[in-house]
Amino acid sequence: MTKSRDGEPTEALLLTPGPLTTTRATRHAMLRDWGSRDHDFIKLTARIRRRLAAIVGGRAGAKTCVPIQGSGTFAVEAALQTLIPRDGKLLILVNGAYGRRMAEICRVIGRAFEVLEWPDNQPVDGRRVAAALEADGAITDVAVVHVETTSGLLNPLADVADVVADAGRRLHIDAMSSFGAIGIDAETVPFTSLFASSNKCLEGVPGIGFVIADGTALERARGNAISLALDLEAQGRGFETNGQWRFTPPTHVLAALDAALDQFDAEGGVPGRFARYSRNCAVLCAGMRELGFTPWLEEGLQAPIIVTFRIPDGGWFRFGDFYDSLQRRGIVIYPGKLTVMDSFRIGCIGAVGEAEMRRALGVIGETVKAMGG
Amino acid sequence: MTKSRDGEPTEALLLTPGPLTTTRATRHAMLRDWGSRDHDFIKLTARIRRRLAAIVGGRAGAKTCVPIQGSGTFAVEAALQTLIPRDGKLLILVNGAYGRRMAEICRVIGRAFEVLEWPDNQPVDGRRVAAALEADGAITDVAVVHVETTSGLLNPLADVADVVADAGRRLHIDAMSSFGAIGIDAETVPFTSLFASSNKCLEGVPGIGFVIADGTALERARGNAISLALDLEAQGRGFETNGQWRFTPPTHVLAALDAALDQFDAEGGVPGRFARYSRNCAVLCAGMRELGFTPWLEEGLQAPIIVTFRIPDGGWFRFGDFYDSLQRRGIVIYPGKLTVMDSFRIGCIGAVGEAEMRRALGVIGETVKAMGG
Repeated sequence: MTKSRDGEPTEALLLTPGPLTTTRATRHAMLRDWGSRDHDFIKLTARIRRRLAAIVGGRAGAKTCVPIQGSGTFAVEAALQTLIPRDGKLLILVNGAYGRRMAEICRVIGRAFEVLEWPDNQPVDGRRVAAALEADGAITDVAVVHVETTSGLLNPLADVADVVADAGRRLHIDAMSSFGAIGIDAETVPFTSLFASSNKCLEGVPGIGFVIADGTALERARGNAISLALDLEAQGRGFETNGQWRFTPPTHVLAALDAALDQFDAEGGVPGRFARYSRNCAVLCAGMRELGFTPWLEEGLQAPIIVTFRIPDGGWFRFGDFYDSLQRRGIVIYPGKLTVMDSFRIGCIGAVGEAEMRRALGVIGETVKAMGG
Repeated sequence: MTKSRDGEPTEALLLTPGPLTTTRATRHAMLRDWGSRDHDFIKLTARIRRRLAAIVGGRAGAKTCVPIQGSGTFAVEAALQTLIPRDGKLLILVNGAYGRRMAEICRVIGRAFEVLEWPDNQPVDGRRVAAALEADGAITDVAVVHVETTSGLLNPLADVADVVADAGRRLHIDAMSSFGAIGIDAETVPFTSLFASSNKCLEGVPGIGFVIADGTALERARGNAISLALDLEAQGRGFETNGQWRFTPPTHVLAALDAALDQFDAEGGVPGRFARYSRNCAVLCAGMRELGFTPWLEEGLQAPIIVTFRIPDGGWFRFGDFYDSLQRRGIVIYPGKLTVMDSFRIGCIGAVGEAEMRRALGVIGETVKAMGG
């Protein structure tokens, strides 16, 4: 039994891409039951929608937030189902598993798409995007992953957004791993939709995804979706009509998200969170280097979200043993997801600070020693 | 501030079709964070799947439980998307809004269907089903709602199941409002799938639906779904392969469900829960009659889940005022959903017993008096 940043006993430090370590205040917000069609809950839903939309700023009322039950992928699919026109074509920029997942969604739901690919350790490149848009007039929409959780890489979102806007196409942003920690300003980064979830940098518990969409684009998307549950336009219209969820929402998860947003505000919003995660990331990378591990990405490409480490040479390192040993001592890390080489990942997000990163490094150091590294 | 059945302070008694009042033990199970790909959580998921499948009994291993993120409707759509063949045709038995919702799902996902309709206060009738199956050889599957939450009516599931089996077709059961409270024995009620959710008679918190499906039918359904997130076969295969969720599950909601299942077992499973809810329902109906309210359904059709009451005559009763007055005193009830007449509903499920039903009746009596009824 270890302790999280605010001193609440918790079973483990979750140094993963999420679900993450949350605070006592966030978890305790789940101790109340809510009637999902009661006035109080309608107010809670409206407040959360307003607060999430406000994080991207922009002209008042231009963007609307539609939360949806399920994981982040449910929000991605809902956005693509609803916002990519049935006769549209989506260009998907891929440099990791989450770009590939959007392609898989388009394949399954039967929307036309094309993939533009880069290696997992290289950022997407606006010039290639511009050329692809120039070459194919059928492309109506472009999708990009802001931070690829596969590697931890930060893609040049502003460049891509400029290119897409200049070409008169619409942009959709998978901001799953960045939202709340890395600023996206709707005033300067034009986008049609952006998707994220409750349990990443907002430090809520899992169970809710959400899409922040251009209000006009959403209204015009009526009838696009080929799923009842994942029809974002119908849900958005429902919220505008009576403030209600069409289908039972995870009430306790939403109460936790509201509490997590209080803490997000108290920390100073995106700049505050970015500062803490950047410090966590710096401490993690420096400490791991001292222990002989090498971050995989070039420093300038690394987002302060999750770090991919190479499996060390010498044959002494077995990831399964390493994972189990850390897990027994209350540190949960993550396997790698690269196709090109063996790796593992350690997250630096969630309700953790420098002290927790140093504690994790201490346990990792002892484990390496015991393994003969 | 009032108290729930186990003495924990709670904001309201939720006498609705769900989300419901839960116990302290269920809510407190959400105070731990879980790594969703960690060993401990894989074990939790396997245990929940096993426990849910065991509730319908049947030959060992014949039925498999696939939980899915979201509300009950997400589970309904996942089951229909995955299990109704692309060239199949679904006959939907409709005597309320939840039957109609299945028709809406089929319309949106583009599966062929036909509706057989009864008034909201009449049970579906096996003979008409038999005739419809006889008349249309293209029908491959039949769907029925066990307890229609619209009215509170119990449909004759065993009759329908016999008719469908005799005609060599496959049955899908919406057991949303009955699962855990009214027995469904896979040995004697042949079905291909059954769908329910965490936050009804199992008394968990909302955020998870699940489908209990014939294992062979599920295996054969590969490639049917036209949604990535709602592909039940892919998720079922994932569980069999490595015990993992494809996409982040609501970890805290699942921990609460596991705790709720402990309490379900301790109460004696389905018979225990049926007995408590039946007593709740009897106390509610008798008390409401004394206050001048009339249950809408004939007694023999009423399931001990939720009761529809007629709006009383005399012009003194305004539902909005009635609702608000009860809500201010910690009792949350539900509007009616009938299309034929004005009504309201009071649930008798959740972590409530006779004492809570009597407390609610006391508040209702005082409210009626204050309103001049």
